[in-house]
Amino acid sequence: MSQPSHSIPSKHSVLSNEDIEHDDHITHTFEQYEFTKTQSPLPLNGVRRRTAPLSADMGGTMTKIVFWIPGDTDIDLPKYVEPEESVMSGFDLYPDPVLKVTMNSKGENELCFMKFPTSQIPEFIHYAKTSKLKEIYGIGNLQILNVTGGGAYKFANLLKDEMDLEVRQQDEMRCLVLGVNFLLLCCQEKLCFRFVNKTKLYREVTPEIFPYLLVNVGSGVSILKVTAPEKYERVSGSLIGGGTFWGLCCLLTNYKSFDEMLQAAQYGQHQNVDLYVKDIYGRCYDSVGLAADMMASSFGKIQKVPCGEAKNHYSEADIAQGLMMMVCGSIAHLGFELTKLHHINRIFYTGGFVAHNPVVWEAITTMLTTWSSGSVDANFLEYDGYFGSIGALLLSEYEEELM
Amino acid sequence: MSQPSHSIPSKHSVLSNEDIEHDDHITHTFEQYEFTKTQSPLPLNGVRRRTAPLSADMGGTMTKIVFWIPGDTDIDLPKYVEPEESVMSGFDLYPDPVLKVTMNSKGENELCFMKFPTSQIPEFIHYAKTSKLKEIYGIGNLQILNVTGGGAYKFANLLKDEMDLEVRQQDEMRCLVLGVNFLLLCCQEKLCFRFVNKTKLYREVTPEIFPYLLVNVGSGVSILKVTAPEKYERVSGSLIGGGTFWGLCCLLTNYKSFDEMLQAAQYGQHQNVDLYVKDIYGRCYDSVGLAADMMASSFGKIQKVPCGEAKNHYSEADIAQGLMMMVCGSIAHLGFELTKLHHINRIFYTGGFVAHNPVVWEAITTMLTTWSSGSVDANFLEYDGYFGSIGALLLSEYEEELM
Repeated sequence: MSQPSHSIPSKHSVLSNEDIEHDDHITHTFEQYEFTKTQSPLPLNGVRRRTAPLSADMGGTMTKIVFWIPGDTDIDLPKYVEPEESVMSGFDLYPDPVLKVTMNSKGENELCFMKFPTSQIPEFIHYAKTSKLKEIYGIGNLQILNVTGGGAYKFANLLKDEMDLEVRQQDEMRCLVLGVNFLLLCCQEKLCFRFVNKTKLYREVTPEIFPYLLVNVGSGVSILKVTAPEKYERVSGSLIGGGTFWGLCCLLTNYKSFDEMLQAAQYGQHQNVDLYVKDIYGRCYDSVGLAADMMASSFGKIQKVPCGEAKNHYSEADIAQGLMMMVCGSIAHLGFELTKLHHINRIFYTGGFVAHNPVVWEAITTMLTTWSSGSVDANFLEYDGYFGSIGALLLSEYEEELM
Repeated sequence: MSQPSHSIPSKHSVLSNEDIEHDDHITHTFEQYEFTKTQSPLPLNGVRRRTAPLSADMGGTMTKIVFWIPGDTDIDLPKYVEPEESVMSGFDLYPDPVLKVTMNSKGENELCFMKFPTSQIPEFIHYAKTSKLKEIYGIGNLQILNVTGGGAYKFANLLKDEMDLEVRQQDEMRCLVLGVNFLLLCCQEKLCFRFVNKTKLYREVTPEIFPYLLVNVGSGVSILKVTAPEKYERVSGSLIGGGTFWGLCCLLTNYKSFDEMLQAAQYGQHQNVDLYVKDIYGRCYDSVGLAADMMASSFGKIQKVPCGEAKNHYSEADIAQGLMMMVCGSIAHLGFELTKLHHINRIFYTGGFVAHNPVVWEAITTMLTTWSSGSVDANFLEYDGYFGSIGALLLSEYEEELM
């Protein structure tokens, strides 16, 4: 593993969030890892550690944990902890929740994933304190827990009081980029796929993957240009993201969960609410290259019904699919424009709205392929949702190496 | 006036829509006008004409007419014809519905504007046939009426049967660009403005206005890059436009008209439904330059309320303003990204959703100014809504010259 370069003057400056925040606000450079397919930055088990071999991404709703299972140890997890699986009932798209990470020179470790509601963090801390995790990881020696996401501040005192662990908050986007690049470059499995005809088509990723656009869709959207394993820049964003879909779907339908909304968005007919080029011109608009069956306006067809009657005129499923097309269309279109601006033809879509969500994969893929005439691919990733945690764990390992 | 150049091989090819439609689908070149402040392409009155000195943009809802008043003639218009005025009650922002166009070498003509529901076209044709318009314009000699917009096909037979007028359909975007450039370059008045502190700040336009982006917001959005008086290219578009605002507002509120929706969007508090950076991180996200009070997700705050309770939790006005911010944010943001892609820092916003709409002007201006740190201006235009008709009229005048 390479040592910190001249751009990282002290150990502390790598670990502290403060220095990052007072950066030039645009570009970050991380140089402490060598990312290759054959050498991982991860250490052997059994090392006497001070940083926890576990990291957490404490989001507004869910906390996502990534941790090492040392050797063949079985760990009994509490009931509220969810193993990872597709949010779509009827689909079985998510891989084994254990990712075997091969480190040629150091043997093989298992990277494990789990999530639970952020509100359960106090219970989880109690579990960690009283379970055999203490023996397995020698918790008495641990001093530092790397955390990313907004919840880190909220639970820092509890972690200190209950487990004598110091929370070290890590920058969310930095962790995201580190996590994605680790998955792309350090894992032996193919974990990157396109979604064509309702099928995942896995593809090999080479170190020539850079530069690429990383479109991370949570409540809103952040778009990062990633130019090297540890270099990125936030180049754009959007207000129209998963929070927009959820919010408007809550206001417009009686679906009670994201799962119900997604199911409806699968069988609805957005054509009933959306306006097409042919609805405006009666045919195509050839002189500027608009096909007759191209969408022209999300929810634009509603103006054809008297306003007072609109509420009872459309099915909830049509509306849910219309919202899905509106949000995915916006995300796909912005991504496409940015590929032109930045001369990049690879986009990876990640984030809570995209993770395990074939409805979103299909909508984004279809629109991006149409608009770019096939020149730009939409790529998705396994273990989406855990990249922040993986990045924070990598920083743990790095800190451990420095100690 | 310049004659058709080598790029326009015959008179017919200028007039026919067919040739345009089989163009390269990307870039159009029109060279038949000289656009200067001192020389207009418009002819003297009293010329024995074959093309009508009137043109129509027959939209899905409203038909917009532009016509010359020859000399001091008074014309009594039918009652369903609306004089132009602001759609916002309480505002008095729209200029005199008569635009005096000075032609130094040829005297001064008055260009008049009016609109009526497209459904009233049969009545208007009857009026035109039976009123003194016949004498004024010598309708017996007229053979051709230039029309743009989707309704041209629909009423072509009626115009032929009732008035023996041949409808010549003109390309909508071509007419839009011609109309905007005529207004910018040929009129003595200042008709272009920014909207700052609820006030129109008029600005001088010079022939160095090119290139600029023309963001035309109707039901959907078309974005044109205009590089010369008669050169443009459709470079982008968006599904999220006026039809989206109207459609979702109809579904989500009990407002019955666009005017009511706009009034509500003025006093609503979108902050109640939108998620901010501080709602996610508890503060700013400095390392990527996101201020605490920056919007993060349109309607993203709704996820903080249980889904079943959301419907009764938010006021209709807050929702209307949230929709306005979502649509205007999308339009402003896309425009901003395209200024970077095309190295252009001037944007003109036009179209049915923008015309006479200070709520939209303010929302777009605020967001574009924030995101571009003031480097890109949002410009708006008087007589917005009539550019297609003006362009079609210019083509009438050109055709008349050729006859």
